[in-house]
Amino acid sequence: MSHNTFGHLFRVTTFGESHGPALGCVVDGCPSRIPLEAAEIQKYLDLRRPGQSRFTTQRQEPDAVKILSGVMTGDDGAQMTTGTPIALMIENTDQRSKDYGEIKDSYRPGHADYVYDVKYGFRDYRGGGRSSARETAARVAAGAVARKIIPGVKIRAALVQVGAKKIDRSRWDWDEVSRNQLFCPDPVAAVEWADYLDDIRKAGSSIGAVLEVVAEGVPPGWGAPIYGKLDADLAAALMSINAVKGVEIGDGFASAELTGEENADEMRAGNDGPAFLANHAGGILGGVSTGQPIVARFAVKPTSSILTPRRSVDRYGAEVELRTKGRHDPCVGVRAAPIAEAMVACVLADHFLRHRGQQGGGHAWPFTR
Amino acid sequence: MSHNTFGHLFRVTTFGESHGPALGCVVDGCPSRIPLEAAEIQKYLDLRRPGQSRFTTQRQEPDAVKILSGVMTGDDGAQMTTGTPIALMIENTDQRSKDYGEIKDSYRPGHADYVYDVKYGFRDYRGGGRSSARETAARVAAGAVARKIIPGVKIRAALVQVGAKKIDRSRWDWDEVSRNQLFCPDPVAAVEWADYLDDIRKAGSSIGAVLEVVAEGVPPGWGAPIYGKLDADLAAALMSINAVKGVEIGDGFASAELTGEENADEMRAGNDGPAFLANHAGGILGGVSTGQPIVARFAVKPTSSILTPRRSVDRYGAEVELRTKGRHDPCVGVRAAPIAEAMVACVLADHFLRHRGQQGGGHAWPFTR
Amino acid sequence: MSHNTFGHLFRVTTFGESHGPALGCVVDGCPSRIPLEAAEIQKYLDLRRPGQSRFTTQRQEPDAVKILSGVMTGDDGAQMTTGTPIALMIENTDQRSKDYGEIKDSYRPGHADYVYDVKYGFRDYRGGGRSSARETAARVAAGAVARKIIPGVKIRAALVQVGAKKIDRSRWDWDEVSRNQLFCPDPVAAVEWADYLDDIRKAGSSIGAVLEVVAEGVPPGWGAPIYGKLDADLAAALMSINAVKGVEIGDGFASAELTGEENADEMRAGNDGPAFLANHAGGILGGVSTGQPIVARFAVKPTSSILTPRRSVDRYGAEVELRTKGRHDPCVGVRAAPIAEAMVACVLADHFLRHRGQQGGGHAWPFTR
Amino acid sequence: MSHNTFGHLFRVTTFGESHGPALGCVVDGCPSRIPLEAAEIQKYLDLRRPGQSRFTTQRQEPDAVKILSGVMTGDDGAQMTTGTPIALMIENTDQRSKDYGEIKDSYRPGHADYVYDVKYGFRDYRGGGRSSARETAARVAAGAVARKIIPGVKIRAALVQVGAKKIDRSRWDWDEVSRNQLFCPDPVAAVEWADYLDDIRKAGSSIGAVLEVVAEGVPPGWGAPIYGKLDADLAAALMSINAVKGVEIGDGFASAELTGEENADEMRAGNDGPAFLANHAGGILGGVSTGQPIVARFAVKPTSSILTPRRSVDRYGAEVELRTKGRHDPCVGVRAAPIAEAMVACVLADHFLRHRGQQGGGHAWPFTR
Repeated sequence: MSHNTFGHLFRVTTFGESHGPALGCVVDGCPSRIPLEAAEIQKYLDLRRPGQSRFTTQRQEPDAVKILSGVMTGDDGAQMTTGTPIALMIENTDQRSKDYGEIKDSYRPGHADYVYDVKYGFRDYRGGGRSSARETAARVAAGAVARKIIPGVKIRAALVQVGAKKIDRSRWDWDEVSRNQLFCPDPVAAVEWADYLDDIRKAGSSIGAVLEVVAEGVPPGWGAPIYGKLDADLAAALMSINAVKGVEIGDGFASAELTGEENADEMRAGNDGPAFLANHAGGILGGVSTGQPIVARFAVKPTSSILTPRRSVDRYGAEVELRTKGRHDPCVGVRAAPIAEAMVACVLADHFLRHRGQQGGGHAWPFTR
Repeated sequence: MSHNTFGHLFRVTTFGESHGPALGCVVDGCPSRIPLEAAEIQKYLDLRRPGQSRFTTQRQEPDAVKILSGVMTGDDGAQMTTGTPIALMIENTDQRSKDYGEIKDSYRPGHADYVYDVKYGFRDYRGGGRSSARETAARVAAGAVARKIIPGVKIRAALVQVGAKKIDRSRWDWDEVSRNQLFCPDPVAAVEWADYLDDIRKAGSSIGAVLEVVAEGVPPGWGAPIYGKLDADLAAALMSINAVKGVEIGDGFASAELTGEENADEMRAGNDGPAFLANHAGGILGGVSTGQPIVARFAVKPTSSILTPRRSVDRYGAEVELRTKGRHDPCVGVRAAPIAEAMVACVLADHFLRHRGQQGGGHAWPFTR
Repeated sequence: MSHNTFGHLFRVTTFGESHGPALGCVVDGCPSRIPLEAAEIQKYLDLRRPGQSRFTTQRQEPDAVKILSGVMTGDDGAQMTTGTPIALMIENTDQRSKDYGEIKDSYRPGHADYVYDVKYGFRDYRGGGRSSARETAARVAAGAVARKIIPGVKIRAALVQVGAKKIDRSRWDWDEVSRNQLFCPDPVAAVEWADYLDDIRKAGSSIGAVLEVVAEGVPPGWGAPIYGKLDADLAAALMSINAVKGVEIGDGFASAELTGEENADEMRAGNDGPAFLANHAGGILGGVSTGQPIVARFAVKPTSSILTPRRSVDRYGAEVELRTKGRHDPCVGVRAAPIAEAMVACVLADHFLRHRGQQGGGHAWPFTR
Repeated sequence: MSHNTFGHLFRVTTFGESHGPALGCVVDGCPSRIPLEAAEIQKYLDLRRPGQSRFTTQRQEPDAVKILSGVMTGDDGAQMTTGTPIALMIENTDQRSKDYGEIKDSYRPGHADYVYDVKYGFRDYRGGGRSSARETAARVAAGAVARKIIPGVKIRAALVQVGAKKIDRSRWDWDEVSRNQLFCPDPVAAVEWADYLDDIRKAGSSIGAVLEVVAEGVPPGWGAPIYGKLDADLAAALMSINAVKGVEIGDGFASAELTGEENADEMRAGNDGPAFLANHAGGILGGVSTGQPIVARFAVKPTSSILTPRRSVDRYGAEVELRTKGRHDPCVGVRAAPIAEAMVACVLADHFLRHRGQQGGGHAWPFTR
């Protein structure tokens, strides 16, 4: 058990606060002989990095990753993993020495301030400390390593709802996700949402969002009954991301309204296994992957830091009014796509290794024995 | 790591198939000197037991629990836990020796049949084997033990939606849940839904559902950042229940449509901590309990076993049509309330012990130091 | 974490007390499609079973094992594992209802009585409760399953020292181990020790012992640096057996007296890897198997239950004198061989699965790339 | 599961190779509000640091530790833990760029070279890579944190045997350990051994050793049956240290020669619990601490790196002769004392937290209820 570790055979331990010297992670269990350069990790960190658009906090951080261990240059000149733990470090540079006086002793509604004080009797109030979304940089770095060990799997996330505004799924274009600053797969919505979020940002307000993450290329058989279910692990991984309040797989909450006839993903004969005629299940049955794309969605609450004063109390029990000055994201969901992809990559890498370790008589289709 | 174990300090390992000799669990980590009688466990098993109403499968099982270890009668004549593992066993009695010929080699859509064959190359097809909802009897037994170590916490679940039909929350009455056979807190809806489900049952069809589980009396401070978050553990625990496709905490997916102003749970001075003016967060911030009621909802897909034939394939790759003969539930959500309560109880008992072990300088309100 | 579970991918959870209804285990992580009959487990339980010779406690227990889950009969009529948890149960039958009055409140020196009371405030004093050597029956049952998944590995244990009397290693004959009642590989020592132990038994005294366990056929590469070392896991597994006070690998404590020249296991070219010219290392280097036989030894303290009165205290703080009436073993080491074999089998099965899961670029000898 | 992590509630993950940019650890589970300065950690690293005497490798490393996370300065100006993970980093500076040509492809006898190549197909041969004793610096750093959370426990280790030479226990003086360069508690032996080791060093040879570690002040009740035994965890922790081949608790292997009468640690009435009249058990019964000093010993094999050529093979299967040029320790046991203390401190800190989490009805002496 460890509160700052996730995964079993592919295991990630993260450390670091918003305003400490550095944050990072130790990735344990990565197989050896996998080519790995810092630049491959940096690519994903750059996608998550704040300050790149007007829709994200203006904190300027290079978020440059250093590989401290676990790799060596092989005879062919390529840097490869050695099978030992891979420590990744990102030094904090933009630790603005602003006055934290107001929030030092007061509890911002929607934040972890109060519960950290209850639990620990002591709290790093600078930028949210450990509860800052900056911690997710370490997850994104780990996710980049995870992707390297499941190269056949393509993991992509997109923003599919902002406030009450949803995308038009008939316009879904994965290429569009990297063209706009909102990770939105619908080019029309992307333009409209940009204006909408501008208004929210200017008003010092914030709004929630829904994201969808899809993993293609996962073979059937990953995951495990009963408490190692792939969907249960994905639910925990996504719910552990800051501000996430709900997770669903496949049809999710909509499946409550379906009949058994509608919900059944029928099958016909296929080449490498059954050919499914639908994917209400989101690629997972009984906690195990079916070979279909794995589809998950998660809801992100609105940024708790807003300009409008909110009523609260301070640590001495006195009543106060708090407003969050300074930089913040109008919609934290905008930056959540690379983080969700990273978490899904880590879960899948872990289950790939677990499946490889525990599989017994699994076999190729069709099952003639 | 273990696929059939959950929890860390309060740890539950379950075993057993639908048609094997017995199923049960080993509860490890229960503190000593807690009074525990089999009848206290049986009470919850009876709530989950099938065959009690026309809305649940007609399999007749007494589901009588035996305590095999971990308790002893003390000097005062009361049976108490000793701190050693508590093994609980439920023998299977109604293992109807029907002909499983049709589903033995064919894959029922929506079931785990195909993925088990992929993963294990061998599958206990009798009644679903390990993937049967019968496995949840062991969870309910474990949950009964969990409740004993957090006596101040009240955990209750209710059916709040069947198909597209939702309860009227203004009529919510917890007492009603035990009065009707649907675990529904709205007496009007309970009557209406009974008719609705009768029709579905008679048609051999099925429908999905949404349940809500509420834990009151959890003090602030349980749970832990970053990967030991209480909401992440609850999400995994509920998602691990058969047929669950979505989990949300507090406002959940609805929080996507809220502004930061709306979503903030403001605070005023209170006696034992802040007095919250709302509970959009569902009692959890930063992965740690706030002292407010913990509120979670989860979606259950429709029973996959239906009378209408569905297209599928068999293990040899041939195309077949399958319909499920025999007993089944029109809505598996109806029986999910005791199971969800048990899972939440286990998660909370675990976090109670973890908090007790790891807490450092946590202190009493107001925090004057 | 769990105090009653060991292993990671091959995981064993045991339960049960000396005088409760039953004891047993849940084996989680056993691959599927492995033929497994109760008789194969019973064979090892019978070796451990008390009451078979005058050198072991006269408690009469059939120790009949029942498989409660995890297996099914396949099309060919053979019972096979399904990949789900295998629950094994052994019912207690000879729970002699004697008067435990004397030891109920008093602490037997060398036993866990006092520390259990300190830790749990409550203690199952009947036959030692959970701390009874009866718990090891569950380990032996689990070990029988473990052996099935590493069929190429031969694990054998032998008694090599009783009191100050050591075997003559030039007379080592593995076949002899099953011919005498002491698991002794030296036929001459076996006869001599029988007389020696008879004297000790008649005097109501007891004596310590040393056992050696050897695993042949383990391929190179099992185990893992740094905290998953095969020798560290073996040390913990053997030290967890009742009464064990020391564990050593290869030359063990004798290696303290060796020079680097003497201790080096030199290598020459071999067919499947290096041909080692010695095995001071006991088959493990850097925590990883070398392909040589794995050799471990462990020391067992004398049975704490003796006829001679010993000074002690009771739970109220009063001073008492205690002697153990009734059946007991003159040397608990005599029965430790099957238990040690089982623990080693479980550790190796676990590391086999872990290696299979985590291995990356491991390859065949010689390493030409 | 994780191969580079140990502990459960007090959890340490280490990373780093001998010649990589840095090594270090992440300490997870340290309670909050514990004063912690880098200097307190540095103190122990300085004791372990090489190059301080002629008996240890001449590699010159400042081994300066940096705290990257998990602490903050409180209102009173003292730096305190916050309850979040404490990352500690030690940068490698003396990475002598020597030619590793000879050992790059050849397997040094007694080292992990061959097994790493088997397991990973790739090996960081520079200074032993991850299998270098340099990794233990991270353990020592973690141990310094562990000591802070169990301030009432005094943990000390000493060298008690070098080759066949043992200390005279009547001369045991703990203060002497810090006065000589050998961590030897016997002043006479310390002088004699210095000459002995000088001869071995000059001959380019090496010798094994035995160390003893004693933990005083551990209250009764820490540890847990059955597979969480304190002695089993200590055995694994000590066996995981480089070059360790045997571990014993209390009388250890000598207990094989004792009778039950001799081995019984008798008790008389005491103030805070039983007053034990002996400590053959080494402070642990049934896996749980008795309140007596915990005593463990472990054997360290001779340094495998020696000047005398040894026969071996290279990765291509060719036969070679290898001698280790350059710096090395004549007896690795000399530097093992701070490492062993650190491992014991980590195990005890972990069990302290586990006991606090899981204890139920434990109570104060005498037990009147």
